Parts: sequence; C-alpha cells; structure tokens
Amino acid sequence: MSFCNCHHFILYLLLVLLLGVNNAVSEPEEYKTYIVHMDHSLKPSSFLTHETWHRTILQSLSKPVHDKDMLLYSYNHVMHGFSARLTPSQASEIKRSPAHIATHEEKSGKLFTTHSPQFMGLRHSSGLWNASSYGEGVIIGMIDSGVWPESESFSEKGMPAVPTRWKGKCQNSTINPFPCNRKLIGAQVFIKGSQAAGESDSPDDTPRDFLGHGTHTSSTAAGNHVPGASQFGYAQGVARGLAPGAHVAMYKVSSGGSIVESDVLAAMDQAITDGVDIMSLSLGFYPTPYFQDIIAIGSLSAIEKGIVVVCSAGNNGLPNTTHNAAPWITTVGAGTLDRSFTATVTLGNNQTFEGESKFPSRVLVLDTPLYYGKGDFNKTICRPGALSENDVFGKVVICDNNNSISVFEQAGELARNGAAAGILISDSIPDGIDQLSIPSLILSSSFGASIKKYATEAGDDDARVKIMRFVLTSFGTKPAPQVAGFSSRGPDPINPNILKPDIIAPGVDVLAAIPPTIPVQYFDNYVLASDYALYSGTSMSTPHVAGVAALLKAVHPEWSPAAIRSALMTTAYSIDNNGTTLTDQATNLPGTPLDYGAGHINPNKAMDPGLIYDIDWQGYVEFLCGLGYNDTEMKAILRQSQWNCSHEGTDVNYPSFVAMFSTSSPNAKNFTRVVTNVGDDQSVYHAVVETTYGMTFTVEPTTLTFTNKYQKQNFMVSVQTYGKGPPVTYGYLKWVDQNGHVVASPVVVLNS
Amino acid sequence: MSFCNCHHFILYLLLVLLLGVNNAVSEPEEYKTYIVHMDHSLKPSSFLTHETWHRTILQSLSKPVHDKDMLLYSYNHVMHGFSARLTPSQASEIKRSPAHIATHEEKSGKLFTTHSPQFMGLRHSSGLWNASSYGEGVIIGMIDSGVWPESESFSEKGMPAVPTRWKGKCQNSTINPFPCNRKLIGAQVFIKGSQAAGESDSPDDTPRDFLGHGTHTSSTAAGNHVPGASQFGYAQGVARGLAPGAHVAMYKVSSGGSIVESDVLAAMDQAITDGVDIMSLSLGFYPTPYFQDIIAIGSLSAIEKGIVVVCSAGNNGLPNTTHNAAPWITTVGAGTLDRSFTATVTLGNNQTFEGESKFPSRVLVLDTPLYYGKGDFNKTICRPGALSENDVFGKVVICDNNNSISVFEQAGELARNGAAAGILISDSIPDGIDQLSIPSLILSSSFGASIKKYATEAGDDDARVKIMRFVLTSFGTKPAPQVAGFSSRGPDPINPNILKPDIIAPGVDVLAAIPPTIPVQYFDNYVLASDYALYSGTSMSTPHVAGVAALLKAVHPEWSPAAIRSALMTTAYSIDNNGTTLTDQATNLPGTPLDYGAGHINPNKAMDPGLIYDIDWQGYVEFLCGLGYNDTEMKAILRQSQWNCSHEGTDVNYPSFVAMFSTSSPNAKNFTRVVTNVGDDQSVYHAVVETTYGMTFTVEPTTLTFTNKYQKQNFMVSVQTYGKGPPVTYGYLKWVDQNGHVVASPVVVLNS
Repeated sequence: MSFCNCHHFILYLLLVLLLGVNNAVSEPEEYKTYIVHMDHSLKPSSFLTHETWHRTILQSLSKPVHDKDMLLYSYNHVMHGFSARLTPSQASEIKRSPAHIATHEEKSGKLFTTHSPQFMGLRHSSGLWNASSYGEGVIIGMIDSGVWPESESFSEKGMPAVPTRWKGKCQNSTINPFPCNRKLIGAQVFIKGSQAAGESDSPDDTPRDFLGHGTHTSSTAAGNHVPGASQFGYAQGVARGLAPGAHVAMYKVSSGGSIVESDVLAAMDQAITDGVDIMSLSLGFYPTPYFQDIIAIGSLSAIEKGIVVVCSAGNNGLPNTTHNAAPWITTVGAGTLDRSFTATVTLGNNQTFEGESKFPSRVLVLDTPLYYGKGDFNKTICRPGALSENDVFGKVVICDNNNSISVFEQAGELARNGAAAGILISDSIPDGIDQLSIPSLILSSSFGASIKKYATEAGDDDARVKIMRFVLTSFGTKPAPQVAGFSSRGPDPINPNILKPDIIAPGVDVLAAIPPTIPVQYFDNYVLASDYALYSGTSMSTPHVAGVAALLKAVHPEWSPAAIRSALMTTAYSIDNNGTTLTDQATNLPGTPLDYGAGHINPNKAMDPGLIYDIDWQGYVEFLCGLGYNDTEMKAILRQSQWNCSHEGTDVNYPSFVAMFSTSSPNAKNFTRVVTNVGDDQSVYHAVVETTYGMTFTVEPTTLTFTNKYQKQNFMVSVQTYGKGPPVTYGYLKWVDQNGHVVASPVVVLNS
Repeated sequence: MSFCNCHHFILYLLLVLLLGVNNAVSEPEEYKTYIVHMDHSLKPSSFLTHETWHRTILQSLSKPVHDKDMLLYSYNHVMHGFSARLTPSQASEIKRSPAHIATHEEKSGKLFTTHSPQFMGLRHSSGLWNASSYGEGVIIGMIDSGVWPESESFSEKGMPAVPTRWKGKCQNSTINPFPCNRKLIGAQVFIKGSQAAGESDSPDDTPRDFLGHGTHTSSTAAGNHVPGASQFGYAQGVARGLAPGAHVAMYKVSSGGSIVESDVLAAMDQAITDGVDIMSLSLGFYPTPYFQDIIAIGSLSAIEKGIVVVCSAGNNGLPNTTHNAAPWITTVGAGTLDRSFTATVTLGNNQTFEGESKFPSRVLVLDTPLYYGKGDFNKTICRPGALSENDVFGKVVICDNNNSISVFEQAGELARNGAAAGILISDSIPDGIDQLSIPSLILSSSFGASIKKYATEAGDDDARVKIMRFVLTSFGTKPAPQVAGFSSRGPDPINPNILKPDIIAPGVDVLAAIPPTIPVQYFDNYVLASDYALYSGTSMSTPHVAGVAALLKAVHPEWSPAAIRSALMTTAYSIDNNGTTLTDQATNLPGTPLDYGAGHINPNKAMDPGLIYDIDWQGYVEFLCGLGYNDTEMKAILRQSQWNCSHEGTDVNYPSFVAMFSTSSPNAKNFTRVVTNVGDDQSVYHAVVETTYGMTFTVEPTTLTFTNKYQKQNFMVSVQTYGKGPPVTYGYLKWVDQNGHVVASPVVVLNS
C-alpha cells in the first residue's frame, strides 16, 4: 500500500515538471492562495510528516517558488491538506495527484459587556456561575484579531494554574513583548495568508490586537472582573466575561481587519492541537456548501474531538443570510439588552425629561436659555443654514421632528452656531447617535411636545433649562431583549432544513475591553480612547454563548458539543420583559424562530435541561450522506476515505424542526428524534404541543418514561400544514416533566 | 440663690426697657448677629429651659423684634448662651445683665480621596482597618456644607445598624426629600445665622450639599467603598473613606459657601447632644484668643465629653497662619500623595515621554505632524499672536519654556490656531493645569530638549508624533509626601508655645465624592460633571485624620481625645519616600515641624503608640489659667463659674515642645511631661535625643520603667540654645522601648 502511494507520487512529480516547462512561455499568471485537500492515507511513508510531503509536492511544481513563499500552512486536524500561494496552472497540476481530493481558491471573509451577565440571569451565589466555579479549568480558544494582554480583563488575579493538558504557546518576543499569564494562557498569530494575499498591511506578527475586535470578544467570553469599567461613563459597572474563571487562548487571524480562509483554518488547526475546550469565531465567509466552507470543515474536526464551536450568524439583518450554519456549529444571533444610555433635561418649570444620548462627556448645562424657533418653520426644524449665532449662541435649542432633516444635520447646525446643547425629537433612535456633534438628547414626539409647549408659553425671554445632565445609564428598558436589527436571519441559504440561528444572546451595546490605543468616539475634533467600549454585532453575542458553553462544560464535562447546544436551545426563552414574543428591533413587530432560533440564551436553565438531543459523529456523517455529496465532497469534509451511510436523510437529531412545504409537495412531514435523559433517574415527560395559525403537529408517543439517567427515548413528530398557509408559521414542542423541566423546541413551517 | 437670680433678672428687664425708649429716637441701627455668653447658673428657676430664658431676655429688649427673627440659636453644650440678631444698642443692653459673661459680634469664616488610604498604609487584612473593623460603631459628625445622600459613597451596604445611643435626626421633608440610612445616620441644617446675615442666598433648608465641600469631606472620612471612582478617569480606583465602617452625621453650616459663627456653634452644640464620637471641621474663622474663638469654645465642651475634635489648620501657606490651634483640638495640615496625573507622547523615533496633565478627556492623538517653531523666537515660545493656523492646524506643537509666557497663554495660542495638542515645557507645575485649553502635557526642560532635538533633526516635514495618550495616573511619585504649598504653618499666631499644626495628612488632589450637579472642569466651552473629584486643601486632610481617629476610637474606646491625638502625633513620620526630611512643596526645601507638626499621619503605628501624653479637663483649665485670662474670659471658655488654677503655666502635657528664646530671655527652658503606658505591662523606655545645629536638650530621667499598663511616669526636658541660633531649629525626643515602640516628639526652638 505504501509502495503504491509512493509510485503514484513519483509519477505525479514527473507530470508536473513537464507541464511546468510548457507554462514557462505563456503569460505570467497571478499567484493566489489555494486550499488543497489531500488524502492523508495516501502519503508515501518516506515522508515523516504531512508537512514535508506537502512541501515536496509544492517544490516539484513547474516554475517553483521558494517554499517559504509557497506553503502557507499544513493542516492536520481541521482538514487534511495545506494552503499555498499558487498560480492557477500550479493548482491544476496538484489536482492531478491521486492523493488530491479538492482544491479551492481562498476567499476572504469578515469579522462579524458589564451588564450582560446580569441580564442573562447569572448571579454569584447560585446557578451556573456557582456550579461551574465561573468556568474554572475550561479553555476557550478565540479565533479573532488578537488581544490586548495588558487589559485588566486579562489579569490573572484569582485564576488557577494553567491546565497541565494545555499544549499551546504564547508568541512572545523581545521585539514584540506579549505577556501571557494564567488567564491568557496562549496567543499565536496566523496572518501569513492575508499577508500573502496583500490584505494585511501589517508586517507585525504579534498576537497584540490593533483592531479592538478580538480584545472585546475575548473579554466578553472570559474576562476577569474589572470594577468601574465604562465607555466614557456609560454602562459603568463591573465588567466581566461570561466565564470569568475560564482560560483564554487567542488565535489571531486578522491584523488590519481582513481575514482569509487559509489563516482561519490554520488557527482552528492549532487550537485543536493545543487542547481548547471551546472555540469562538466571531467571523465568517460568504456562505457555501459545507464541503467548501472552511469553518464548517474545521468545526467538524473540532466537534469530533469534543470541542464546542460557537460562531456568529452574521450581521446582514435580512432573511436567508445566516453564516456558519452547519448543524455541528452553534450559530448565534444578536439581541438587545434592557439598558439605555440617556441624558436628562429639567426645564424652568421643574419638569424633567429623559432622552437617549451617547455624548461622550459628562457635560453639565446649568440655568441656560431655551430656544425654540417657533414662527419660522426652518428654524423650528433647525434646518441647516436657518439658524444664526444671534438666535442660539450659548442656548439650549429644541429642534422639531422632520423627516427631511436628520438629527445629525440638526446637531451640526446647532454646533455651527454655538448652541450649548440640543433637544432633538425623533420617534426612532438612529444608529450612530454617539457621533452627534453637540451635547444632545433625543426625545419622542410626545415629550418633545411638552417641551415645545413650555417654550412657547414661557416665551423667548423666560424659557429656561435648569439643568441638563449627560452620561446616564438606565436599566429595565422595555421591550428587552429584542432581536437586533442587524442580526442575520434564517432560513439558512445553504440548508433551510436546519433552523438557524440556533439562539440569540446579547449583541447590542455590549461593554467589553478594547486596546487603549484605538479611537472609540469623537468630541469636537478630538479622538477619544477608552479601556472599555460598547460594540454591537453578532461578533459580540457569540462570545457570550462561548462563555456560557464554557460554564456548562465545567459543570458537565461529559456532555458532547451537541448536548451543550441542545441544553442552550431547549431552555432558551422567546418571551420578553413585556411578556410577549421577542420583537424584531428592525420592525418593532414580533419576531419568529427564523430571527431568534430557539430564543434567547438562559444560562442557569441550560445547566439542567432535563433532556438533550445528542448527535454523535455518525449522526453528522448520515446528515452529510443525506445531502447527496459525492465521494470527493464527502472526503473533503470528513477527512476520511471511509464512511458509512447507514440510512440517508437530512433529518439530523436537532433540537429544532423545520418543515418546508411547497404547493407541489405533500402537506405533512415526519421527523424522528432521540432524547437522552440528563435529569433525574426517574422521570416522565409529557408532550405539550403549541401551535399557531396555519400549522399543527402531532407527537408519538406523547409520554416518555425514563428510569435511568442517560437513558434514550425515541419519538416522532408529524408536522401538517393545511391549505395555503402563511410563508412562515411556527409552534413549539415542549417536553414537560414533573420536576419543572421544560424542553422546548421550535417547530417552524415554511410554505413556498 | 434662685430668688436672687430672679431679682437680678427683673431689675435687668426694667433697665432694658428704659434704655429702649431712649434709643427709639436715634438713627436706625444695623442688625448684626451677636454671640452672647451667659452664666447659666444664674438662670431664674422659673424658666424651665435656657432657651425660654434667652427668648425672654430678647423679648424684653428695647425695640423688640419678633423673637422668631431675633433668636438664632440657644446653646447648651458648646457654650452657655445664645446667638441673636441685635442692634449694637440691644447688644449693649444685654451686657448689663448680671448673668451676662461676654458678647461678641459674629464673624464669618471660610471653608478651608481613592489612593490616600493605601498611601497611609491601610490594608484590609491587617493593622488598623482590621483591628477596628473599619471603624465600626463610631459616629463622625461633619460640620460642613451638607452632603449628597445619593452618592454611592453613602450607601449603607454592609453597614451595621444605627447605634442605639444615637439621638440625632435626619432633616427630611416631602418638599426636600433627603434619605438617611445606616451609613448617613443624621443630617441637619444650621444656616439661620448666615441667612440672617444675608450671606446665604439659598432659602433652602435641606442638608443637601450644593457646594461639594461637605460631600467630599464626609466621604473622605467615612465613605463606603466604591469601585471605579475617578475624576474623568484620573485617580481611578476604589474610593473609600478612612473609616468606611463608621457612621456619618452631617451638620450643614454653609449653603452658598460663607459660614458664620452662630451656625457653626449651633451645629457643634447639636452634634454633642446627638452623641457623635468624632467631630470634623474643615473650616475656620480668623484666629482670635480662645475665649473669643467659637470653635475653640465649642471644642473644649466636646473634648470634655470625650469627643475628638479635628480641625483644619487653614490654607494660608505662610508662617504664623495656623487656624483652630487650641491645644485641645487636633489641628491638621496638608501633604501630597505619591500620585501623578499624566499624559504620554511617543515620537516618530519611538521615544516616549511622560508629562503632567489633567486634561479631562481621554483624547487620543495618532500619527500627527510635530511642529516646533525653530528659527523664530516668538513661535518657539508660542507667544500669543505669533502662530498661525497655517503653522499649526491639526499638529502637535512643542512650546519652549519662557518666563514671560505662561503655559496657559501658550495653550490658548495653540487652541486659537487649531493645534491638535501641545507639549509645554516647565520645570514647575503651576496650579490649575486642569484648565489648559487644549490637550497638553507639561514636561521638564530636559525632556523638552530631547523632543526639540528630534523635531529639529527630523525637520518640519518628517517630525511626527506617533501617539499621545491622556488621562493616565502614575504612582510612586517622589518625593512624597511633601508639605502642601498652601498648608498653613506655625508658629501659631495666638499661642506660639504650642506647636501647630499637630500633624499633616493627604490634602492634595484627594479624590472623593461630590454632588453630580456641580461643575468640576471644562472642555472647550463645556462644563463637565463627575461623581468624584480631586480637591485640595487642609479641608481634605482634616477628614483623613477624623477618619483615622474614628478607627482608633473603635480599637481604644477608652482613650481620651488627647490620647488619640498623642498616638497620632508620636507615631507620625517626617521622612519621605526619598529617605529625607519631608520637603515643602512651596520651596522644594526641607520643611520643619512648623510646617508639618509631628509629621505625616501613620495610622497603623498610631494603633499601638506605646506611651501617650494624656491631658484631662483640669490640664486644659490649668493651661488656660496660665494664659492670664480674666474671670470673664475664663467663664466664656469654660462655661463654668468655678475652676481651679492649682498651678499656673502654659506647659500643657503636649506631645510636642516649643521653646521660644529671645536675646533677652534665658537660654534654657524646662518642660515637665507625664506619659502613660498603653503598651505592655512591663516595659522600659530609653530617651533618645536627636538634635540639630543651634539647639540641644536633656531629659531627666533618661529611662522610664513601667510595670503596669496605664501606669504614668514623669520626666523633664530641658532645652538649651547657645549663642545666636537660627530663627527655627529643632530636634526629636524619642522614647524607645524593647518592643519596637518609638514615641517621638518634635522639640522646636524659636529664636527671636
């Protein structure tokens, strides 16, 4: 067998050399990064390592380039193969090797806290923080833009020793000092790919974060507790990660903001080698079939080793835009917190109004005239050019709501004319109000009307503002959580049969650590820095879930990644603090599981889910079998030349259900599921069926009786639609036992 | 006896009525506040209370005014008597009463923290904080400008119940809600005097602080711990008072900033009634003899009841300016901390410089041209009018040191021309650098030279600043502590024989709580607010000492006020963190005990001083006897008609020594002292005599042997000067035992 491989290889080398000569006379080709899947079982035994084999393959190509420039990474865990800088012709040469499985040209992707642990219900003396000792002993690998090690969030204070099983390293050097410690136990750089592609202008190979993204996500996942963190006073409080007791390892894949596949794959490969327990990726590439999706490929390897992989769903904000949606990945959308950033104005008549504001300094406006340009429409709406210094210099100005003039234009007009502050009226809060060019607050029309009434009645000479205060933070905002407007929505463009995102977590105005050397906000012409900043994105929600996964891992080290995700999903909630279905921030209308998946994460409940929907390796293999992939495609994703499609079907044992119907398809769909009892030995679960207009489903059996922990039970769900239903409708299957366990799964019907 | 009194009183009333008629025809007189000392032993028994007696006296005056407007306060504890609004004629009428002791027209006076506990050596697990349970159970009465009860520093979190002995109240109302709690256990207002004098424009009678002063001092003395406190990011850390476990009672005597004697006296009277353990006064009046000094008078009453009275020495910064220097008061000067507020600049050549800065926002200057106006003297020194926008807009500008142009003028020139930031050069840091009108740092000439060298060599086109960072705090500044430039110095103008101040404590850039509604700093034209602010003054050092006194009181409830002061003084240190004598910030030269008294407070040592110099009531009486006061003067201060001058002499049993010599006086002076053993039962102390040029002294005996705790021993100190010595010279007497106790007293010689 090994001889045979060797023979093939030699043949291949000859062929390559031949072709090389032919190419030498043609037009110069552009070098690109290719990711090449190889069948590692065909490696000639004369090569001690896969890497030497890969190098030899590359050296043997026509028009060889020095190998240092050619091979980017050899991959061992996430996939079998390598990435390299090649011309299209060279890539074609490699494809002729019998050991070659698949090659694709690399694509580039993009990078997609204080109050959020409390909002998620975590408390010190009870529940998941208590049970998990804050995630003690768990290692979270962050695939991100690096980290700022001097941030207080990465202090090792109170941290236990680095686990002995840890094999990672800290890429430190005297030129680029980078201190790791018991909190930040590893940090490595994987930017050869983006450097080769010319997408990184930084020659720096330090794991230090120059972007802010990785510092923010890492401290969200597992930052130590830091009292008094804030962004210019907003959101002030104790900043801490979701798993403040867990260790962090950074795998830097972005220096200037761009990311490429070869680097991410190398980072995931290293994280698996090093021994992380959780991998968190707040980034993604354009959705492609799993066998071409390097994050899907890398994750499946990680899952095989018991590593939980948590990824962002993306920030596209539209249906059919989810990223990272392979069923072995935990895919995370974003929700809002119940926290608002405000300012107050107290009028001469002692009425006080609270409005939205993110002005970055605690400006105090004391006993100041209030100006309202009544009588002149352009002045009332603060139309650019309409006001004069004579009107408004040193005064507080109220500007009427007007669809044609944005609050930013109004604030600009006030700033140009030396107003002291602005009262702006808008019934929706636009993005970027932290960039208003004058201290201002935004009030709803109804409050605005009260102020205009006062201004009119008091008259220009007597209308006054007693005090305006900025940089206030209020809690209990309703409704909360909402689905963030930007959060990518299902159905998943690659496989709409799997409900994605799986779950949402806080991702709007999350306060977490950043490097102190990057701009956060502006005040006049000044750039302002901060140790903690409010960032939004599914990038921010993902490390929340990674952190909670770490806590669950600490409590239940025996749980598989699928079990941990199942626990998160079946205990998530979809009712907000108004007692109604989670609304969509983009529309203010009720959302659906296509927006929020199973719902909002509920960590303490996830600790004790009662039942889990587990999926083992073979479960994923059969899922892939059911997708109709050919052998090459299967090899690319499984990294194996042998697999067993025992029974085909895309019906993986998922804790959510999607039934797709078209007018031509039958109006019923059956799902089989297996649940594992992880609660009490003796328990009896009854099925509760919650349906809404246009769909229904039945469960068989309707009672599941368990006599032992880890016992499994099968059941079947049959979903029916009738007539021409709405495009999206859904219900919930809830398994309820006598001990308060509610194991909920969304059942979504898509009609086309 | 009571009949006799009554008779006198009636006589007096008749007299008054007679005089009143005469006055009715003369020119209208101005009403003023008079403080009237009465012999309470002469109160007719028909009056149940002193107050009814006082009211009757006032009602009986010629041209009586409605008593509500006339009587301000009746005093019971601090003195015997009252304050009232009277015409000079009316005041003269009262003087004719046989019960009258003294009257004086009221004078007005003036109001004179994160890192400081650490700087003072306080640690959580050991020493005085530990031994005192942070001052648990002790009540500190603050005579000040009110307090902001909602400040986190006055949270009752972790506080024990209000002591049952507490008799004070919380002046709350529905119109002016003011919430007291287990931390802030009382709050009352005493501003009738200043309202009557027209010195308070506030009709408000809430204990709420509209000035900031009282909130700052109270939270310094006993604020609860508040993580993440800062002034715009400077001095960020856990803010806490010196006795975070102690209770606070506020006696508000200032609304608009002015204070008058009648109010302060009333506040002290109430504090004694209510049962405070410590009284802290960060205020004072122009120094006068003790019998006219209402703080001296009120304090002596407090001391009699075992209440420690701690007062500010004042902010005059010159010799002979100490306030509140009666020997029963603990008089506090101010020192600096080892903390600096800084900014950094990194040049294009990667050199980084740290300079002083208090710019109130974390401005970030990134990769910006550096301008140095070399070749044109006026441009190099940034002379107002010399620069143009063309020169400096958007650039960082370095301005040369020049005696004729202040850094404020330079910053103004940079701001007018749109510079991004300034590098200013000065070898001394002027006051008020928080008001520089552009982000700037101040560097010493030597660092400035390096930057100018770089700017010159790199040339206008290439000289750049890579990064400037603001709002940094550094620790370990040397030398520290220094005597604050403004701290009032001895010799005391009233009694130079008592060394004052007694001690210094942190009083420069102390971070503590303030109301969030008062201006702290400016940024461009904006007023900025903060929950915590850096204030300087002996007002700030005084509550440090009051807080430590509370800690000592908790550990040693049996100690007298004199014992507590003795412990503070004999354990104070006069060597800074450079290992040399505390320097004077005003001159950068070594200070003397006239500047710093016994030295800088050292709380943990004060807990176990070994020996104390105690003074009981009779000790103070004899001290006063020795001053040659007449009977009226003695009555005014002692509130008693009987006292015993057993042996006269101003040589009170003080833990410091001042020997005054003039060319005509003998060149030796003897002092007798008594020390009480508060250390181990068995101990032997040896006298160590440290002298400097121009003076010496001997001690007799040189060994003190104690066989019991609380045992007393006498000794004599004989101070000699020889020839024409320097105006001020000093040494130390140190009693040293075998267990590490060093009981140090400064011995000061003043030659005139």
